[in-house]
Amino acid sequence: MSQTSTYTVTGMTCQHCVASVTEEVQEIPGVENVEVDLATGAVTVTSAESLDDAAVAAAVEEAGYSLA
Amino acid sequence: MSQTSTYTVTGMTCQHCVASVTEEVQEIPGVENVEVDLATGAVTVTSAESLDDAAVAAAVEEAGYSLA
Repeated sequence: MSQTSTYTVTGMTCQHCVASVTEEVQEIPGVENVEVDLATGAVTVTSAESLDDAAVAAAVEEAGYSLA
Repeated sequence: MSQTSTYTVTGMTCQHCVASVTEEVQEIPGVENVEVDLATGAVTVTSAESLDDAAVAAAVEEAGYSLA
């Protein structure tokens, strides 16, 4: 069974930003799917197991953005 | 001798946008240097010969943006 978590990312301004965040979060082990809504900053992550929020925060920062 | 032309590009919101525009404009034959100011949208192009404005417009559009 998969689980879904939603985070809010600040600072994304365009589809390039969306692509950067998606790419970094997808690299977290166990992540199955990442959906980003540019308008709201909502990043919905589907994973096999419970996600480590710190890993998500680190991935978002690696892309150059921050969690709200 | 090189010549410099400045264009205004609309729609760039972040450094990814700047990189996309820079990359496409740099591919125009004869272009030696491209500088982009994100805040103003100013794109300054240095080229060996006079630039074809239509080629610049096409490159900017290829990147996903428009000349003002």
